[in-house]
This record gives sequence, C-alpha cells and structure tokens, in this order.
Amino acid sequence: MSLLVLKFGGTSVADIDRIRSVAAHVKREHDAGNACAVVVSAMAGQTNKLVAWVEEAWGYKAGGEGESEVSALYDCREYDAVVSSGEQVTSGLLALVLQSMGVKARSWQGWQIPVRTDDAHQKARITGIEVDNLKSAMLGGEVAVCAGFQGIAPNNRIATLGRGGSDTSAVALAAALQADRCDIYTDVDGVYTTDPRVVSKAHRLDRISYEEMLEMASQGAKVLQTRSVEMAMQWSVPVLVRSSFDAPDMPGNPDTGEGIGTLVCHEDEIMEQNVVSGIAYARDEAKVTLLKVADKPGVAARVFGPLSDAHINVDMIVQNVSEDGKSTDLTFTVQSADLDRALEVLKSAKDEIGYLDLRGATDIAKVSAIGVGMRSHAGVAAQMFSALAEKGINIEAISTSEIKISVLIDAAYAELAVRTLHTLFGLDGP
Amino acid sequence: MSLLVLKFGGTSVADIDRIRSVAAHVKREHDAGNACAVVVSAMAGQTNKLVAWVEEAWGYKAGGEGESEVSALYDCREYDAVVSSGEQVTSGLLALVLQSMGVKARSWQGWQIPVRTDDAHQKARITGIEVDNLKSAMLGGEVAVCAGFQGIAPNNRIATLGRGGSDTSAVALAAALQADRCDIYTDVDGVYTTDPRVVSKAHRLDRISYEEMLEMASQGAKVLQTRSVEMAMQWSVPVLVRSSFDAPDMPGNPDTGEGIGTLVCHEDEIMEQNVVSGIAYARDEAKVTLLKVADKPGVAARVFGPLSDAHINVDMIVQNVSEDGKSTDLTFTVQSADLDRALEVLKSAKDEIGYLDLRGATDIAKVSAIGVGMRSHAGVAAQMFSALAEKGINIEAISTSEIKISVLIDAAYAELAVRTLHTLFGLDGP
Repeated sequence: MSLLVLKFGGTSVADIDRIRSVAAHVKREHDAGNACAVVVSAMAGQTNKLVAWVEEAWGYKAGGEGESEVSALYDCREYDAVVSSGEQVTSGLLALVLQSMGVKARSWQGWQIPVRTDDAHQKARITGIEVDNLKSAMLGGEVAVCAGFQGIAPNNRIATLGRGGSDTSAVALAAALQADRCDIYTDVDGVYTTDPRVVSKAHRLDRISYEEMLEMASQGAKVLQTRSVEMAMQWSVPVLVRSSFDAPDMPGNPDTGEGIGTLVCHEDEIMEQNVVSGIAYARDEAKVTLLKVADKPGVAARVFGPLSDAHINVDMIVQNVSEDGKSTDLTFTVQSADLDRALEVLKSAKDEIGYLDLRGATDIAKVSAIGVGMRSHAGVAAQMFSALAEKGINIEAISTSEIKISVLIDAAYAELAVRTLHTLFGLDGP
Repeated sequence: MSLLVLKFGGTSVADIDRIRSVAAHVKREHDAGNACAVVVSAMAGQTNKLVAWVEEAWGYKAGGEGESEVSALYDCREYDAVVSSGEQVTSGLLALVLQSMGVKARSWQGWQIPVRTDDAHQKARITGIEVDNLKSAMLGGEVAVCAGFQGIAPNNRIATLGRGGSDTSAVALAAALQADRCDIYTDVDGVYTTDPRVVSKAHRLDRISYEEMLEMASQGAKVLQTRSVEMAMQWSVPVLVRSSFDAPDMPGNPDTGEGIGTLVCHEDEIMEQNVVSGIAYARDEAKVTLLKVADKPGVAARVFGPLSDAHINVDMIVQNVSEDGKSTDLTFTVQSADLDRALEVLKSAKDEIGYLDLRGATDIAKVSAIGVGMRSHAGVAAQMFSALAEKGINIEAISTSEIKISVLIDAAYAELAVRTLHTLFGLDGP
C-alpha cells in the first residue's frame, strides 16, 4: 500500500462527465489498496466567472460615486471568500461521484483540514498543514477530496494561494502526509524534451530532476507551477506528471509511473542522464536598448534601480564594450507585459541616467538548453553557439546558469533554433 | 442607534446591479447610525444550478454501474458543502460593494460566526449562535454580511437549513444579537389582507401578530417561512416585511417601519385590531373520499395510520353521520403532490380498512379567514358560512382553530369566495 496525493486541474473537472473520469482514476488507485488524497481545482471557467463578479462588485465604485477611475485595490479577503467557493464545489461533487461508484469519500475544505497560511490573502503561502484527521480517514479507506488553492489565515478567514495554487496545495499536502508520490494530472501526459507542436520528434521524458524542471518552468514550459516544484524539491516529494485524459487502466509501472508520465525527482534517482534534457523557449519577453549610455561607475544602478522600484523584473542584460571609452549601449529584457511601463520609467529618469536614445522591441524569443549534465560536460555552450551560427541565427544576448544556457534571438528564428538544438543534443527520436 | 438585522433573498441579489441596490438600503441604515448585520441568500438561480450538479454527480451511478434506478439518497454533507457555496459568494460580493461605497464591511460564513447547528444535514436546525465577535465588529461600525442558510454541525462540517432557510438565519441572528428589529426584504412590500392579484382592494397591513402570520403562512401566503415566524414569536423579534425594490430613501417611520412595510409583532403591540386580519387561500391540496367505510371503532386509525407511516400529512377531515348505523363516508385533504401516493397506500390497505370505493380530486381550494380578534368575537363562522351560501358556494369541509376558520370549496369558486370574505370582514379599501 502506498500513500498517494492526486491532483486534478480545472480542465480535468470542467463538468460532471469529466469529474466522472477523474473519479475512475481515483478508484483505480483506491482499489489497488492505496490510501488516497485528491486535490481539485475549480471547474474550468468558474474561477474566471467569480473573479469577474468580484471586479464588477468593486468596479461599481466608478459609476456609482462619480469617480472616473476603477481601483484594483479591493479587499483581498473578500476576493478569497468568493473565489475559493469554486474549489469547494468541485470537492463536494467529486466526493459524491466517488460515493456513487461505491468508493468511500468525503470533501475537506482548507479550513477543515486545516491548511494554515500566512495572511497575504490572494497570494498566501502555506505555513503548515495539520494532517492527523485527514490521514486517519485516509488510512481508514476513505478518499480525502481536498479543495485546492485555499487555506485558512491566522485571522480565521479563507486565504487563497494565487493562480495555479492547487499544484502547491497538492505538493504541500504530499509533504505533510509524507506521501509516497504526488501525481499531477494535467492535459499533457508528461514533460517533453521540447514543445511537440514545434518539434515533431520531441519525446516524453521518463524522469526529470527538480532543478531541470524549475529551469524548464521558468523558461516557459507551463506544466507545473514553479513554486510547487521548489516545494517538492525541498521536501523530496516525487511528483508524477501525467494525463487525466488517459484511460484509467493505462498500462505502466504503478509504483514509479514509468511508461505513464514523467517523474520529477532528485538527480541521483535518474539512471541515464543526457547532457541536455530539454529545450525551452519563451516569446513573452521584450527587449529594451539604451543607446550611448555614459560609461562610468554607477550607471547600472541608475538604470536598474528605478525599474526595481517599479517592480519590473529584468532578465538578461548585455552591455557592449565601450568603443570610445565614454559611452556604451545597454540591452536587457523584461516581460512583454511590463515593456510600456519600463519605457516610461526610463524616460522619466533620462536626465539622471544620461543616454542618447531608448528603444523597445517585442519581436524576440529566448531559447534555452537545460540539463544537469552540463555541470560535468564542458563545451556545451560552444557547441550551441556554432550550431545556431551555421543556421545564420544571430545571438543578441546570452545568459547562463550551472544547468542552463539561454540565448536571445529574433523571434522569426525561434522554431528553427529549437529544432536545431533539439537535434544537436541528441533529443530527437522516441 | 438601533441594532438591526437585514435579510435579502435570492431575487434581491440576483446580479451585481441588484446587489448594489441592496447595498444602498444597507448604507441608509448604516449612515443613520445603526449597527447592521445583513443576511444574504444565494444569487437567484445559483442554488438550483448547484443542486442540479449534485444530482448529476450522484445520478451517474445509474449509467455508470449498470444500475437502472437513481437513488436520491446522496450524502447530505456533500450536498451542503456544494450548495452552501452560493451564499458564500453573495456575502463576499455584497461586502465588496459596500466597501466600494465607503461603508466598512466584511463577510462572515456560518462556520466563522459560528452558527452552530445539529447534524441533520440539508435540513439542520440552529442550536446556538455565538455572536460576540460579530457584535463587536458591528458596534465598531462594520457591517457584518452573513451568509444565510448555513451553519456548522458538531462534526465540523457545513450544514444547510433547508430551502428558505435564510429567513430562519436572519431571525435567529436577530434573536442572538438581541436586535431591535429584523427586516426581511422581499419582492413584495409587506403582508396584504389577501392576494392583491385576486382582490384589487386588498391592502397592506401595517402590523400583524405572529400567530396570524403563522396561520397566513401555513394557509398559503408565501411571504415568510413558517419556521422563521415561530422563532421570531418565541424570541420576541419584531420582523418588518418590506420590499427590496423600494427606493432606499423611501419615506416612512424608520423606527417602527410604519408606512414602509408590515411589522410582525406580538398581539398586544397592535393598537387597532380587526376581527379578521386577512383571507388566505391555497390550491395545492387534494381531496380523498372513502365511500361506505365501516362505521365502527378503530376505523380512523386503520385509515390514517398507513398514511402517517408513509409520511403523508392529512389536513382537513370530515366524517359524515352514518345513515344506516353501519357505514359512513370519510373525506380528508392531503397535499396535491402526495395524492397519488395516498391513493396507493389506501388501495393496499383496502381489506384492512374495509370500504366500497375510493376517490381522489384536485379541483378544490381551501379558503381561510384569519384574525386574533376571533377569540373575543362570536359568530364569525356563522357570518362566513351564510355569506358563502348567499353566493351559492357549497362548503365541502370545515376546519377551525382559535384564530382561523378554513373551508374547502370547489376550486372554480376560489376567487369569488376570497372576494366575498374580504368584503364581509371589512378589509376592502386602503
């Protein structure tokens, strides 16, 4: 018998038919003798509807009181009370479907377990989970259907964990229960070497390390929430990414998930390790270039200080070598959504910074090769740069970590670059 | 300063526009310096949607497991978890709208107050409300927006009070808070002498006693839940029935509600009391007649015992005088919805009861005159019967209480009977 946590997202529970498929997956694990906790999101579309109501309720300030501007600063505690109801509904419905199939089950709200959080409503962090009651129910053969995305703050009010928080709920619960595995059921059947829509030869990885998964997630692969991967790594929770659309009797190793999905685990639990495990890409960054910035001490602080104050995250930074010893060009990237704001901030600070001109562009892509094998293999970057050069792809900026090399290129070459690197590092094929 | 409880039903909070009107009513009371608790129902349609989901979730047993019959015996605790979310949403939204108007407000779920109930999920009874936290927030100038219809059972799970339970929530909260008044905002502006759709001269009562209101409610007037009236009487909570569609600055006495709606209160708080306060009618009863029942001791028990066992309530009963000393005809009424079942029960028991024939009919109406003044006025029944006789209306059965006289008549004469009695007892006119 294993202790399992199973997590199902909004698409997997979008209507009662799909909840029934979810229940079939749960029943399989339950019938195999496992003690199961299930974490569910709101039915697809419900959270958006609830958020729209919250905004409409608060937005009436504008018309009603003759004010022209609608503030987004509504009371997050009320947002949480309203929006958390979505997961409450799903948990009750799944418990009922399981019961109708003859599986003992009950729903648990965040405050009932309880899942304790801090008081940062709408983006709360879990501070602890008291699993005694939950665990004894599970060990008694009852499936514990837990509302994801929610907990209870010290003020005795419902707190939500922010979008995608159900992944975090599931991993935190698995850690607290000392579960054997946390299965994240999603709309893909695992983590791929790269996006299969771009590279037809992409294949599913049987295993990937937490560190690689973190880089994949932050480099644009949207399978798991970054925060949940960090938590899984910290608490050594094996996470199996698998598809909720597979038939419940899908063959594969039920203990390790081999052949079913991708197991996210510690590096040393992966036998055969490629130098590069995957190629990620992101199109949601924008490039900012400052021309002829005075090349003297303190200029970087004068550029990046105001951006930081405006809560704008800067990713890659390139500073050209000064030709005349007096001025240089400075290029960096921000999230596309932040571009306009970044340009405004820099315009206001033009006199303090001192530059000739300012340019923004969104027609760029970031392509990354990721693999823990890089730690022990030299020359990966050189291989990567020459392969791209051979295809005539110009590299505008580079950033690296111990297990990742990212390059910034013209967006038009994104797919070509991904395919080139996928082949280069031996990832093509099944 | 008064301590007020304001209750708004599902139609009054059907969308954000209507919630905004509700908030205007609350703001008026708040700005007048009153400490306010507001009890809200789910937005109209939400409860039905949630119930349909519950039934769909459970109903899948039929198709899924090859069973032919769908049982309604789902887990009421899960029903409560799902369905109570409707009120949770409304409470958060109203708190946000109030805040957007500059009124301090917060939402309170049943388990947060807490409203304690027994464990009869789906039709729980309130066993106590701990109002200390709520009251100190209210006295601090914050409007307490409470989710109606829900509480927390001894098992730490959400329990709902049954349909219409928000009226009960409001009155129970008013009792626990020792509120000065409980205002029930509804889609009518008070309690009328009879249904204005039947009698154009019907007028709103300024005051009505709890006892009369109970008879009105159980005789077919659908303004307040019977249970909430019983509770208001028991705890001496003055209840003002008023319209949520009135403009928030509607004139009238803000302390007593005079000129605004109908105050339900103790008899001795009503100065001018008519003999009859109102005429109620109901069309949802059906008549059952047993012909030639053996007229001997124990026959009534043999008829009504099986009906009681089948949880069928019998209302009016008439037994003719036996002509031959051997047999008699027995007529009684049941709810229309129970008629088929009642006939089946009686057919199965035919041999034990011993009767010649069995008949059921739904083309009947029950018309009632209600008034505490009857206690001190003789001859009301005689007046009533002769007025009906003058119009050629045949009375098929009669039942009375200390403050009520009901007659069963042919449904075709229902409106005529109501108009006749309304005039007879001086209720016409403003």
